[in-house]
Amino acid sequence: MEGCLRELKLNVVEFIRQVRDGESLDPAQIRAFITGVAQGNVPDYQASAYLMAVYHQGLEDDAVVETTLAMRDSGKPINLSHIDAVKVDKHSTGGVGDKISIPLAPWVASCGVPVPMISGRGLGHTGGTLDKLESIPGFDVFMGTDAFCRLVEDEGLCMMGATSDVAPADKKFYALRDVTSTVESIPLITASILSKKLSEGIDALVLDVKFGAGAFMKDFSRAEALAESLVRVGQGAGLKVRALLTNMNAPLGRTIGNSLEIVESIEILQGRGPADTTELTREIAAEMVVLGGRAGDLEQARALLDEQLSSGAALEKFKAMVRVQGGDARVIDDPSLLPQADEQLEVRAESDGWVSGIDALGLGTLAMDLGAGRRRAEDAVDHAVGIELDVRIGSEVKKGDRLGVIHQRRTNRAEVRRFYDAFSWSDVSTGTPSLIERRI
Amino acid sequence: MEGCLRELKLNVVEFIRQVRDGESLDPAQIRAFITGVAQGNVPDYQASAYLMAVYHQGLEDDAVVETTLAMRDSGKPINLSHIDAVKVDKHSTGGVGDKISIPLAPWVASCGVPVPMISGRGLGHTGGTLDKLESIPGFDVFMGTDAFCRLVEDEGLCMMGATSDVAPADKKFYALRDVTSTVESIPLITASILSKKLSEGIDALVLDVKFGAGAFMKDFSRAEALAESLVRVGQGAGLKVRALLTNMNAPLGRTIGNSLEIVESIEILQGRGPADTTELTREIAAEMVVLGGRAGDLEQARALLDEQLSSGAALEKFKAMVRVQGGDARVIDDPSLLPQADEQLEVRAESDGWVSGIDALGLGTLAMDLGAGRRRAEDAVDHAVGIELDVRIGSEVKKGDRLGVIHQRRTNRAEVRRFYDAFSWSDVSTGTPSLIERRI
Repeated sequence: MEGCLRELKLNVVEFIRQVRDGESLDPAQIRAFITGVAQGNVPDYQASAYLMAVYHQGLEDDAVVETTLAMRDSGKPINLSHIDAVKVDKHSTGGVGDKISIPLAPWVASCGVPVPMISGRGLGHTGGTLDKLESIPGFDVFMGTDAFCRLVEDEGLCMMGATSDVAPADKKFYALRDVTSTVESIPLITASILSKKLSEGIDALVLDVKFGAGAFMKDFSRAEALAESLVRVGQGAGLKVRALLTNMNAPLGRTIGNSLEIVESIEILQGRGPADTTELTREIAAEMVVLGGRAGDLEQARALLDEQLSSGAALEKFKAMVRVQGGDARVIDDPSLLPQADEQLEVRAESDGWVSGIDALGLGTLAMDLGAGRRRAEDAVDHAVGIELDVRIGSEVKKGDRLGVIHQRRTNRAEVRRFYDAFSWSDVSTGTPSLIERRI
Repeated sequence: MEGCLRELKLNVVEFIRQVRDGESLDPAQIRAFITGVAQGNVPDYQASAYLMAVYHQGLEDDAVVETTLAMRDSGKPINLSHIDAVKVDKHSTGGVGDKISIPLAPWVASCGVPVPMISGRGLGHTGGTLDKLESIPGFDVFMGTDAFCRLVEDEGLCMMGATSDVAPADKKFYALRDVTSTVESIPLITASILSKKLSEGIDALVLDVKFGAGAFMKDFSRAEALAESLVRVGQGAGLKVRALLTNMNAPLGRTIGNSLEIVESIEILQGRGPADTTELTREIAAEMVVLGGRAGDLEQARALLDEQLSSGAALEKFKAMVRVQGGDARVIDDPSLLPQADEQLEVRAESDGWVSGIDALGLGTLAMDLGAGRRRAEDAVDHAVGIELDVRIGSEVKKGDRLGVIHQRRTNRAEVRRFYDAFSWSDVSTGTPSLIERRI
């Protein structure tokens, strides 16, 4: 690599100056810089100066494309070109109660669209798909790249955690961003997300970019800018891309917590899931089915999806995935085999009214504190604990009605107050906010 | 220090975020951060993210004052409070042919104002006072802090290089700025300059802030902004401060190179120096004498200075300084005792005309290439080599007139062309640009 830096005559100080001053960058120099950081030939103190310069000056789309590709190529991207189909994945920027990937992947795969999905763990108030899947006894999310490729080919889907071969440059940059206050930069987020997704060997991608209290981007316009950046850069890197901007002010669905979200995911695939998570899963799935070429438009895609759901094919695909990834598929018919918390505290309404708000951040943090999530990346999670919600925004409630249940390891009634305080009330009927705000 | 970071509850990531977002900073947290960087408890990658954030967002004056004081206190500031007088120093932002400090310090000291002066080495096209002083055989610029204090007390002046006790935080930050493209930041330059000067135990400071082709700040308005920042922050840190904005488009005086500039310095103290360097030395000296309380205004100060010059007292003070700092004081009466280059190439005018420009950067770089300066900080300098100039901007020249002399170790006629190319010509009489553009 030092040879590469020399050969390309990359003057790192001058490169940082160009970024600092918002100048156009030479693609070969971007690649030399990113590779140099990944391999440790560019020291951390120069990488972090670059990150702060990008934070303030941004990067042109072409530069983000090259950054993304160089980050992908810092590892060993998975090659699925031998599978003669459009491989499609989905990425969510993360939220509270967001279990969409779990019913989504098998539902889409049941339509004949291969879904190679690499997911992550939860952090802070947001959950992670891997943690949820690991609620299923025996389910293996680290079977390695060869098995991943085989499962995508044979079963049409696989859900795996990232190996060390997936965009190591992103790991390095992410660790630095985390300690240098440079996380919230749209070009850096864009390159981070897409470099990992491009490492999966996909051809198309649907992005679920969330805004609101429980989302990484609280602000709609920032989330919109991120979604637009992801679409432009994803296309620049050769992907077919669609993005949905979705509301994350209230938790998604009726559960928060790992086992509980698996139960909800199964219910969605059984056609009896909550309205909001069912709708969002179906809409993202429809986009993926269109991108995958199994339907001409969204209407056709929805019809195909509805068929796969009512025929039980989607649920069967989920069962097959659980089985081939080593999980106990009996949980699908008997959710009591999933980890369960001993204490279940009911929370009831103290007066009549309409639910006008449910604080996603508040309940996400409560779930984390119960043990369902991680305060720090090195923490362990408890799959059994979490929160059930019986109401959603717009629900009419009478005093004494059950609002939800807190699943705890040990009784702690103080949590009831925190649960209750996450609710806002209205004396008059309130509507239910729409979930999908914009499609790009 | 880790205890200090803990005790102050300094969250470094949050502190960097505040800097990044241009928020007001808590003085105690600034101090904890700067001390943490100096002592290695804050890693370099966080320090460089902070530097780039400051580059883009700036810092409020109060924050620069606290940064400056914390950088000063990272070392062992010299205490001269036992000397019952206003101690005054001067700082120049550096230029080509800028030997002003050398005649200045003894001239001011001869008026009864103590001058404790810590100087630096040259780099690139700009020279350094320490290198010039070391042309004098035996002259010691590293006698240590105790001797420095004694000489300021006994002789009224001392010129020394910085010890490791002088603002180590600045050394650390400067090394990082150099490799992260964060050198050209006014708050960072301000804190760097003033933290070192405040370590000398001074009460007042005159700043010579240069603009133009041969200066660090090419642009007048940037130099002006730096001068204003230095004055505001210096005053905020308890100093009496004056700043002069001076023209560095053409080289200063008639020599560039170490021995040659010592000769010119002696000539200034003998009252027969070039007009420009004599004027600038006298004006800065007048400011210092006023700040030092030895004259009520600049007019009185100039009169006192003229007296000290014509009586020989200023030159005697220089002789005394050379002697007590171990140098061979005979050089003052016999400059041939200074290192001399074997080859002296004359450069002559190729046609008639008026000199309309002399490229300071071009001649400064030529002098560096001759060996008078350093390309990198670890290079050695040759005290003997350099450039003499017989003309200045506005000089009328006939074909064949001598423009100057190149002092070389080995004959290299290619340098004649570089010398000649530094000149611009006019067919009509051009004025001499004024040297001092503004006083703050």
